Amino acid sequence: MTDPVELTANLIRCPSVTPEEGGALVLLQRELADAGFECTRVDRGGVSNLFARWGKKGHARSFGFNGHTDVVPLGDEAAWTAPPFGAEIRDGVMYGRGATDMKSGVAAFAAAAIDFVRNTPPDGAVILTITGDEEGDAVDGTVALLDHMDATDERMSVCLVGEPTCPNKMGEMMKIGRRGSMSAWFIVTGVQGHSAYPHRANNPLPAMARLMDRLASRELDQGTDHFDASTLAVVTIDTGNPATNVIPAQCSGTVNIRFNDLHSGVSLSDWLKSEAESVAKAFGVEIETKIKISGESFLTPPGRLSDLVARAVESETNICPELSTTGGTSDARFIKNHCPVVEFGLVGRTMHQVDECVEVAQIHQLKAIYARILSDYFA
Amino acid sequence: MTDPVELTANLIRCPSVTPEEGGALVLLQRELADAGFECTRVDRGGVSNLFARWGKKGHARSFGFNGHTDVVPLGDEAAWTAPPFGAEIRDGVMYGRGATDMKSGVAAFAAAAIDFVRNTPPDGAVILTITGDEEGDAVDGTVALLDHMDATDERMSVCLVGEPTCPNKMGEMMKIGRRGSMSAWFIVTGVQGHSAYPHRANNPLPAMARLMDRLASRELDQGTDHFDASTLAVVTIDTGNPATNVIPAQCSGTVNIRFNDLHSGVSLSDWLKSEAESVAKAFGVEIETKIKISGESFLTPPGRLSDLVARAVESETNICPELSTTGGTSDARFIKNHCPVVEFGLVGRTMHQVDECVEVAQIHQLKAIYARILSDYFA
Ligand SMILES: [Zn+2]
Ligand SMILES: [Zn+2]
Repeated sequence: MTDPVELTANLIRCPSVTPEEGGALVLLQRELADAGFECTRVDRGGVSNLFARWGKKGHARSFGFNGHTDVVPLGDEAAWTAPPFGAEIRDGVMYGRGATDMKSGVAAFAAAAIDFVRNTPPDGAVILTITGDEEGDAVDGTVALLDHMDATDERMSVCLVGEPTCPNKMGEMMKIGRRGSMSAWFIVTGVQGHSAYPHRANNPLPAMARLMDRLASRELDQGTDHFDASTLAVVTIDTGNPATNVIPAQCSGTVNIRFNDLHSGVSLSDWLKSEAESVAKAFGVEIETKIKISGESFLTPPGRLSDLVARAVESETNICPELSTTGGTSDARFIKNHCPVVEFGLVGRTMHQVDECVEVAQIHQLKAIYARILSDYFA
Repeated sequence: MTDPVELTANLIRCPSVTPEEGGALVLLQRELADAGFECTRVDRGGVSNLFARWGKKGHARSFGFNGHTDVVPLGDEAAWTAPPFGAEIRDGVMYGRGATDMKSGVAAFAAAAIDFVRNTPPDGAVILTITGDEEGDAVDGTVALLDHMDATDERMSVCLVGEPTCPNKMGEMMKIGRRGSMSAWFIVTGVQGHSAYPHRANNPLPAMARLMDRLASRELDQGTDHFDASTLAVVTIDTGNPATNVIPAQCSGTVNIRFNDLHSGVSLSDWLKSEAESVAKAFGVEIETKIKISGESFLTPPGRLSDLVARAVESETNICPELSTTGGTSDARFIKNHCPVVEFGLVGRTMHQVDECVEVAQIHQLKAIYARILSDYFA
């Protein structure tokens, strides 16, 4: 039996802050190859990725796991009470960068997959795609793995991403999609002048205030069957004018939108641009609008895959997981173009923080859930 | 006869960028003392000032002139087409820092006063207060001179400030008061969070946008008999959040108000604070408000002093000057507590700019106007 706790500890000891491989993928490749997985390193753009398949290529029943071994930087290193790459265990809790996000998840599915193919070799394939570029730009990570699979006719029938998905309690939540995400940058340009003669200037700030008030006040929707309401957050407004007797010529503002399946990047871009145009006209200023769509919303509708995962979670935890689409972005947004994809992992509360940690018992539990998913899938 | 053009040139050649005296006050003191003025240097806080009186101290008919010899920095020195401290004359125009603001004004009233007391010694006193700290903080300039006068029982019956007051044409405008000026700094504090979970954060920016929109949209008044409408300018809004996935905890915004005699610093402070409170309540954020009142509005109502100046201007220019209260602040705001004060000077179009310049003919004309004011006052 492969110990997922030992494997997690060994992975934490690899200092794999994006884009460093840190030895993590090398370690996994060795373990997986030992168990009969065919492994391929798919490196691109300075980052490393690992493709591993047990079983026949192109099998109609190919179960996929996806995860990442790269971690975010340590933050305030002096504030850590345990060595960040030490995997120290205190009172049943293992500390280290990546302890929850997501070396434990990778270790749990790798251990489950290794034991499964060793003990009960299935009629089918088990595919692991593990990237070293999830926390960074993510352009040469899972995307590179999927490009590699397209180029070599590799296919997953379904895929489970092992990111932490539970807010507080093990088992309470899985993800079946995500809202879309986009940002818009507005630059309002007027005419500089003296505060004592505002009529000779053309102040861009009242227009910016009106625009941001209008955008922030708009209720985008009230949510849909599987999605929360879409939200818009004004994230910054900046001018940089230190002089109270000067009316500035320009200011900038940025909003970030998380949107559900009632919208698309294009429909929201149209709305943002028309609001900016209408304010520009009302105030007689120029407004430049730059938009970046990070991802459209997506959904793997509840069905066979989500049932499979939910039943396994409930069997091991006695909790029936909520099928959620909340949260930030994940690599599932790339995988959804390849095959049905859901996400399930442990409690992510300490991710990206100082003293990131994981309960050792949760790692065992997660391996058991992943193992049950595999045996149910191939049953 | 004292040549005001030569005196202007000699003053321009003194490099008296605030707080440097640069030789300007020394030069004036010599000229004035030669003509029988009792002179006192009133230096305070690293800046220099000159008090000069011809005639008996405490005379009931004491006419005052006020001005400054300090100048603003050169700005883009390479862009000057004439030496900034050279007083070069080209096509009847003299170039140099302080050419309009306001070495020509000081030279014109000093020359007029010197010739007047020499040729037609009046029954009364002529007092010149000339500061080297008008363009700077102005706390140790005219204020120091007035403090000195209080301490030594010196008094002006009326005072004329020789700052440039004409927007385009010599003679078209004098000033009989000024709007008040104040600034308010708002800091809105909410709770930081992730853009994907706005309901767990408390974004201060929509509150800031609403507050600034409300303040900028409010019509303060429509002006009064002697004053333009009060104005509010939003001068900056700043957050400094570079991350589109982060809702910031705090942002700041600043407004500047120029207000007429329908308001006071206190009444406007009350209004600003109540608007901030109401927005803070509506959005559930904290808003800290800091206010600085730079000066209350003031007015020397049209009457004997303004008539005297206006008639002299019209006699010399054939233009009846508008009695205005427009523009930025000036040292008249301090003098109004001492005696009735008005301002008249030449066209200020190039003040504070590269290639600041003055028409030589205007300097002669200004001296003639000041001379006529003196002879009419003592007639
Ligand atoms: Zn992650
Ligand atoms: Zn001036």
